[in-house]
This record gives sequence, C-alpha cells and structure tokens, in this order.
Amino acid sequence: MPPAFKTVAVVGKSDAANLPEVLEQLAGILRGRGVAVAMDPATAGASKSKPDRVGELSELASRCDLAIVVGGDGTLIASARTMAEHGVPLVGVNLGTLGFLTDIPADGLEGAIESVLDGEFISESRALLAGAVKRNGKTIFSAAAMNDVVVSRGAVGSMIEFAVTVDGEFIYSLRADGLIVATPTGSTAYALSAGGPILHPALQAFALVPISPHTLSNRPVAIRGSSKVEITLVRGPEARANFDVQAFHELEAGDVVTVSAAPKSATLLHPKGYRYFAMLRQKLRWSERTA
Amino acid sequence: MPPAFKTVAVVGKSDAANLPEVLEQLAGILRGRGVAVAMDPATAGASKSKPDRVGELSELASRCDLAIVVGGDGTLIASARTMAEHGVPLVGVNLGTLGFLTDIPADGLEGAIESVLDGEFISESRALLAGAVKRNGKTIFSAAAMNDVVVSRGAVGSMIEFAVTVDGEFIYSLRADGLIVATPTGSTAYALSAGGPILHPALQAFALVPISPHTLSNRPVAIRGSSKVEITLVRGPEARANFDVQAFHELEAGDVVTVSAAPKSATLLHPKGYRYFAMLRQKLRWSERTA
Amino acid sequence: MPPAFKTVAVVGKSDAANLPEVLEQLAGILRGRGVAVAMDPATAGASKSKPDRVGELSELASRCDLAIVVGGDGTLIASARTMAEHGVPLVGVNLGTLGFLTDIPADGLEGAIESVLDGEFISESRALLAGAVKRNGKTIFSAAAMNDVVVSRGAVGSMIEFAVTVDGEFIYSLRADGLIVATPTGSTAYALSAGGPILHPALQAFALVPISPHTLSNRPVAIRGSSKVEITLVRGPEARANFDVQAFHELEAGDVVTVSAAPKSATLLHPKGYRYFAMLRQKLRWSERTA
Amino acid sequence: MPPAFKTVAVVGKSDAANLPEVLEQLAGILRGRGVAVAMDPATAGASKSKPDRVGELSELASRCDLAIVVGGDGTLIASARTMAEHGVPLVGVNLGTLGFLTDIPADGLEGAIESVLDGEFISESRALLAGAVKRNGKTIFSAAAMNDVVVSRGAVGSMIEFAVTVDGEFIYSLRADGLIVATPTGSTAYALSAGGPILHPALQAFALVPISPHTLSNRPVAIRGSSKVEITLVRGPEARANFDVQAFHELEAGDVVTVSAAPKSATLLHPKGYRYFAMLRQKLRWSERTA
Repeated sequence: MPPAFKTVAVVGKSDAANLPEVLEQLAGILRGRGVAVAMDPATAGASKSKPDRVGELSELASRCDLAIVVGGDGTLIASARTMAEHGVPLVGVNLGTLGFLTDIPADGLEGAIESVLDGEFISESRALLAGAVKRNGKTIFSAAAMNDVVVSRGAVGSMIEFAVTVDGEFIYSLRADGLIVATPTGSTAYALSAGGPILHPALQAFALVPISPHTLSNRPVAIRGSSKVEITLVRGPEARANFDVQAFHELEAGDVVTVSAAPKSATLLHPKGYRYFAMLRQKLRWSERTA
Repeated sequence: MPPAFKTVAVVGKSDAANLPEVLEQLAGILRGRGVAVAMDPATAGASKSKPDRVGELSELASRCDLAIVVGGDGTLIASARTMAEHGVPLVGVNLGTLGFLTDIPADGLEGAIESVLDGEFISESRALLAGAVKRNGKTIFSAAAMNDVVVSRGAVGSMIEFAVTVDGEFIYSLRADGLIVATPTGSTAYALSAGGPILHPALQAFALVPISPHTLSNRPVAIRGSSKVEITLVRGPEARANFDVQAFHELEAGDVVTVSAAPKSATLLHPKGYRYFAMLRQKLRWSERTA
Repeated sequence: MPPAFKTVAVVGKSDAANLPEVLEQLAGILRGRGVAVAMDPATAGASKSKPDRVGELSELASRCDLAIVVGGDGTLIASARTMAEHGVPLVGVNLGTLGFLTDIPADGLEGAIESVLDGEFISESRALLAGAVKRNGKTIFSAAAMNDVVVSRGAVGSMIEFAVTVDGEFIYSLRADGLIVATPTGSTAYALSAGGPILHPALQAFALVPISPHTLSNRPVAIRGSSKVEITLVRGPEARANFDVQAFHELEAGDVVTVSAAPKSATLLHPKGYRYFAMLRQKLRWSERTA
Repeated sequence: MPPAFKTVAVVGKSDAANLPEVLEQLAGILRGRGVAVAMDPATAGASKSKPDRVGELSELASRCDLAIVVGGDGTLIASARTMAEHGVPLVGVNLGTLGFLTDIPADGLEGAIESVLDGEFISESRALLAGAVKRNGKTIFSAAAMNDVVVSRGAVGSMIEFAVTVDGEFIYSLRADGLIVATPTGSTAYALSAGGPILHPALQAFALVPISPHTLSNRPVAIRGSSKVEITLVRGPEARANFDVQAFHELEAGDVVTVSAAPKSATLLHPKGYRYFAMLRQKLRWSERTA
C-alpha cells in the first residue's frame, strides 16, 4: 500500500516564464487525487491556481506529508533543511537544466508526480549537518546545512589560519582560503570545485576539503558521519562561517565552528528508474558508454 | 587482564645493518617473558638469535598470537594479508624512516613491545580487499590486498579503457592510465599520489581513484566498504591487475576484475599514545601547531 | 599572392567508412586546381582515386608543398614529425569528432581546403621535441616528438625513481609513475590528464609534469623552450621512454633521457576563423557564453 | 669592475627581536665601505644605528643604487614594485624561515652582503604586472603587482562569474571563487595553492589560474608574458581585484580588470651559489638526493 499523501506542500522559485503554469498543473494533479495543496506565500503569489492552505515553510513542514519543490538545487536545499525536521520527504522539479537534486524535468512532470503519489518512487536519505559558532564557550549562532559548512576568508584576499580537530583529536593547522565540511550531497557542489572527492550518498561520511591550502601536501580527508568536527579560527580578518551559502556568521579569532550530523536527515523521493550515478554522469558529462 | 601472547611471530625484512641485532633484541624481550619466538626462514637466517620455531608465514599465522614485523610498510602489508586470515594482530617496527603502518622506531623498541605484551596498546582494525580476475565468467586469479587493487596500463604507455560498476550499477567508462580501488589504508599510499582523498581508517569505505583520466571531470569517488566493484577491461594491451603491487595478473579485453571487502580485516596494535592524525601529520609534513 | 602548392601529399588513416570517398573528393579538389596528388602506399590503397605519385612519408615530405592529413590527432602528429623536417605545412581533417589538431570537419572539407589553397589560412608554428636515450655516454636511441617525451614505469606497477636536470641544474629526484616533458601541443594531451597546465602554442615553453608523484608537493613546472632537460633513471624495472606514445625504448638504471627543442617546428595551417581557444572550449566543454 | 653602490636603501620589517641589531650590523657593513645608508621612517625608527638619509620608499628609490630588504617575501615584494620603477636592484634578507625571495639568512648576512657589494652576485630579472580596473571605459584604479592580480569573490561566499580574453581573443566564461593572473614569481605563491603550475622565472609567461572553478575541466593556462589579459566581471557581489594582496579595489558587474606586463621588471641580486631550483626544493621540501 502506497503512503497516503493527504497534504502536499508546493514550493516554487524559478525565473522560468512557465512557473505559474507549472504550479497550476501541479495543483491540478494533486487536487484530481483529492490531495490538499499547501504553498508558502511567495509560491502562492506566483501560482495561477490558489492553494488550499498558505503558510510559511516551517508551518507547512509541520502539516504536510510531502513537499514538491519547483526550482534549482538551491531552492530544494533551503526547503530540505526545514522539511527534514518534520520528516517530510521532498521531490525536486527543475524547469531548466536538471540539477543534482532536482531531477524531474517539467515535461515529464505529470507522470513523475503521479508515480510518486502512487508510491512508485525510490527513497533516498541525505544527511544534514548541524553547525554552530561558539565564542568564549557560548553558542552564538547555529544553523543546519545540507551541502556544507564552510569556514572561509573574507573579501580581504589573504589566507586565514585555523586548527581542526575531529572527535577531539587534533588533525592539522592550516593556512588556506578556507575549509569545507561537506556532506555526500555537498560533495558534488562547492567541495568538488575545490578538489574534494565525491562521496556516495549512502556513505555515512563527511569530507574535509581545504580551499587553496598553503601546505601543498594537505589533501581532502573523508571521516565518519558520526564524527564531530571543530574548527578554531586562529587568524583571519573578515573570516566567515557559511552554511549552504544561504546563511553565514562573521568570525573572530578564537571562535570555534562545530560541525556534526544533524539529528534528522532529509528524504528525497525520486521517480522509479533513478540512478545516482546516471545523474552524476549526466551532470559531470562522463562517458555514457558501457563495456 | 591483558591478552596472553604465548607465541609471537617475528618477521624481519630490512636493508638496515642492525637488523640482526634488532631481531636478537626482540627475541630476548620475548623469551624474557616466557613467550615462544617463531620466525619465517628468511628472518631466522638473518637473526643472531635462533627462534623456537621456524615456518612459512602461513604456517606461523595458524600458530602464533601476535606478529611483530620489522621492516617497511610493504613488509607489514605482505604479512598482514596472511595474518588477517587467522586473526593474528600485528605490530610494526621500522629501522629507518617510520612508515604509515610501521610506527615503532628501533630506539623505542623495548618499551613499545613490553607495553604491547602487557596489553597496553591501541587496537585498530584495517579492512582488506578481496580481488579476483574473471575471464569468460570463471575466476582465474584471486588475491587479497591491504592497500589497493589497481587495474592499469602496461609498459606500452597508451591509456586503457574500462567500465566500472558498483553493486551492479554502471558508474562510468573511462580512458585512463588505470583505476585504483583503495582501502583507507591504501588511501595514503599510491591513491594519494594519484589525487585520491584520505579515508580515515575507521570509515567503512573504499576510494575509486582514476589515474590520469582522459575525462577531466572524472574525480575520485568514495563508496561504502560493503560495495562490490567490477571493472571490465574494454581495451588495453598489456593491462594488468595489481594487488598491493605485490601480486599481479595480466588482463585481456573482456576480463572483469572484481573487488570487495575481504571477510576478515587485519588488526594493528599501536603503542599507547598512538594517534592516526599525528602519524599522518608527521608523514605528510603537515603543520604541528595547534590553535 | 598565395603560396603555390604544386604537389600536395594526402595521408589518410581512419576507421570511418567514408574514408575512400573523402580521399576521392580531396583528390578531385586538388586536381581541379592543377595540383599534383601524392599519397603514401596505405592511403593510396584506401583511396578510390589513384594519386599522381606514391611514396613513403619521408619521401613525400621531400617532394610536396603541403600535407593534408585525414584522420585523428595521432595520425597528424605522426605525419607532422616527418613533414616538419622538410618544412612542409600540414592541414588536418577529421572524419569523426574534431581533434585538438585536426580541426576541419568532413562536411566542411571543400570550402576549407579551397581556402587554404587560395592562401586564406592561419599559420601556426608548433615546436617539436628532440629526444634521445643515452647509455654509458652513448646515444642508443633518438626520436622526435610533437606531444611529449615520457619516462614512465613499466607494467610492473611500482613507481620508478629518477633525477631531473634543466640546463645542467639539478631540479629534483622523484619517485613517481613517470615524468612527462610536453610541448604546448602535448599540454592538452596526456600531460593534461596528469594534472599539467595548458601552455598556449605561441609560448616558447615546455612543461615538466610528474605522473602520480610520491612527493605531494611536487608540481608541474613550465620551463623555457630553449632548455635542455635530462632525466636520469635511478631505479625502475621495465621503465621506458615513450615518444608521442608512437615510439619507445626500454630503459636501464643509469640511462639518461635528454629532451630539447627539435631544430625545426611543424607548421599547421588552419582555415580562416580558427581560434585556438575556441577549439579548446569545444574540446574541453568550457562555457561558450561571453560577458 | 663591480657596480658602484654609493647609496644603499635599507628597508626592514620583521617581528624578529633581533631586527634592531641586524639593521645596525647592516649599517656598519655599509659605512665601513663608505656607502651611504638610507632608510624609510619606519626602518629608521627600528634601527639602533641612525641612517645618513631618511625618506619614503619612493623617494629612496630615486636616490639609491641598491635596496637591502630585511623581512619576509611580502616586504620584499612591496619594496620591489617601487624600486623596479627606478631600476634599483634588491637583495632580500630573512630573519626567520627563508622565503622564496628573501634568501639570505641573518647568520650569513655579512658574507653575503660583502659579496654583493663586491659585485659577486647572481642577477635575476623578475617581471611585474601592470593591473587596472576599468569602469565604463575609464580607468578608476591601477597598481603594479609582483606576484599576482587576483579577481575574487567577497566574503559572501558565493562564486563570481567572469569572462576572460587574452589579446582580445575570448578564452572562457567561468563561475569560480576567482581567477589569479600570476607572474613566475607569483606562481610559487597563492597560485600554487590554487593548483597552478610553477613557471620558471626566466620564462616570459603568466599563468591564468582559476580558483575552485565550477567547470571541472577548466585548468590553469600559461600564456606569453607579452599578452594582455582582460577579465570582465559578469556577476559577483563584493567581488574585488587584489594586487599582491597588498592593494585592492571593489568591483561592480561590468568592470574590466586589465593585466599586462609592467614596463619595468624588478631585479633581484642573489649571493653567488644561488640556484632557483635549490631554493624551490628547500621551500617545497622536495628530495635533495641526486642521481
């Protein structure tokens, strides 16, 4: 028996001209199955079809059974952090170039959504990070991240210096542009550009990826997903801690950025036939030929 | 209560001039505690002090409770594959520059060994790989590896072409000098030179590291340690499968090299105070300063 | 006044089914302008239209004014080494995916060739390497290379060890899979896969690119094109010197591989409108958007 | 006949406790040979021995024959930009760890300086960059750089987007943390951390090194030192142009950063026996063994 999706949140954020039509189409599909449609105010404003309920993302998260995100990976990530707290799974629709996470194209929308509602999907758990900034022993900022927590230099351009521990064990001090702590999801985002490895989503691991390290032998390190990372800023005017590049906090020397797995993971639902590596090959333009 | 090491195998292979003295010293320490000393023929030949028992490595493995390896990482790896099958833990002594695995210096030998015999050690499990070459569906060669299984080009110099699957899912086809499947132990060996990530030993993972890939967007991938990797050679005169660069088998087009975790892991015993990252910092010359 | 191409060598090597037709088409274009057509025996055998002259590549080189190569970059490179000695410029036609060097597509063949014959082309000089193997002070092998001279490990799989000097100054000793000495032309071939920089063809420089170096801080070095490089093999069973992966010689410990600019460069003629970076963007799939 | 150094500028900037003594020692050596000593105000303030002349760096540059810089590479670079304009050669003394440029140790000071004053030195020319920021066609900022001109993201953390041309030819558009245009001198500084090649100082070339490029196939490119580079910022809140990380200017979308060789190079004088690669081996910890 498929899961009963009684209320579905639709979150749309896209520059695509056909966003209103796609939102209307989605609402039509859902209502045709007796499913209530909820939207955040911005999406409701963009939609041709009015939703059954309007609320902020956090409110929707507490009341819906599924979230359909129409937009890019950034929009999905922003929604996923909130939905994960309430155990609401997400589906990603992309109106332009498919993303690493938003893997349903607009022209395949109806079939894909119907299948998911029928329970015909592949469910995938994606770990989130819980990050915090501590100053003088007190937590002054905290945020979740689906891709990465990044400690990095400011606009000044000079490298910052920091020390890293994992589970209390000192790893290294480093001068660099910064350090990325990435989830498997984030391993194909910024961390990949910085030279980090791709971590399969099913691997319970994080990657520590230095950005332009001064020490040339410093290389990315993959650690267990149960580890607790602490990054102490030694020196770095204008340094910042970034969370998914969607939230940030300024850092002072002595501040400690802590990163560990968030208590709850996000759940992505993919249409039947989804394969992680097939998506990766397409996004990274790897060869499609088989042996 | 410390474990009772009643019979200890001593395996020594080193160009160091003091090898005979070190072996004698080791035998003295062991006998002084009433522990029987076993050696392989080559070690017995090099030792000033005659052992209580002489036998091939595989025979020693079935009869001893601990193996002390005097030599480089390569010697330890060769011993570990055999000892792992019988659950015999290993201690590594290095007469020259300390290795990633052989972390006891000659001048700290007595204290370190006494401590281990007293049960004062840090035990660390290291996954091994079980590799095989299949031709026309039949296994024609198989070997274990502690560092890596490498499919690579021969002397010809031209790239080889192969296709890779993980747990039956096609990942990519690639033209490259080769592909390294590395354990966490192997992640600081050849795979690191080829641009792979460091995998913490406690992480149940393998790294797939392409060697000089023709596709520039092809990057190292870390997968779960429970995965089964298959590499099918598409084209490659003189291509070979290497196992720890200590055993190899020639490959023909169509051959499939399979790699998965070996049923048994190796166990390394380190003196108290051992820290994985401290060893890594020393070996890779990372900064020692703490925040 | 355009250059007078009176005799044109046509060299064709391709798996493409339409090779015979393309060769015939080429011969027709040339004869239509009163130009004599020369072919090597293999090309003449594949051609539907018989040439005016048949000879080995080296013989053709001494008698023709232009060489049109139909095939991949490898075929062009093989021809260019010979043609360069006699100052014969080359044009590259590719029947499949365009290469870095063979930049005329079959379907644009007639217009491109007519333009070149009319003197409407962009001429580009490409440096070649003169490589040699010395044993006990005597040269035992020598060859030219358009892409690279590579000293590399054999099938054994273990790293080789070598020492490098530039203009008599010691640079480094290294354990690695090998070392690539690449021209700007070769900088987008094997050297790029090994992590080397792209050298603009107009830059009088070579790149020294280590392959999987054991020393992690060892990085590619670009040196002047007038430099003389010497690579002394210290250790390496089965090591080889490769020249464009089209010729090679086995190396013994103590052998010295010398590399410097060849006295004569190759000349490539490109159709009007050719831009080096436009070709590069297409081959490497860089973004085409302009500001 | 050695060059007559009649007036020597001494510029000292160092946290080392012995800076005052070293400055006094230097002044003593110079006066003992009848050479006038000039200092900038800060150095004069730190010196135990009063100089014959005090003036700003630019004034000293117009009146002295040689500049001795006591400090790190950053201090030498800052002085070199000014001295280069007046053709004044520089000598670098380092009180701590030797730098890439400041290669005379404090304990070898006297012998090295005496040798240089005797004309016993190795002279090396180092190209500088002339950089400028253009807005709406007008130059709004310009500065020289000895290491690099860097266009990079601000503290925001999101990538910037820019388009690059070389000598008017479009190369690529890129999303990245930034782009480094480095001289050979700068190729062993920030650019090396970002994955760029080492350019030999005698090579008339610049390196374009992308910082964490989104396009994984985008690689460093080395171009001729006579080239003119233009970087147009397409998108990037808080983006900046940095010059040796010692001067910077905020950028707006549409701004063009131009980079080309400065009209005058800096001249470094090294003590006899200096070898570029010997310095590099020491700094990068490459193996010292020769074949």
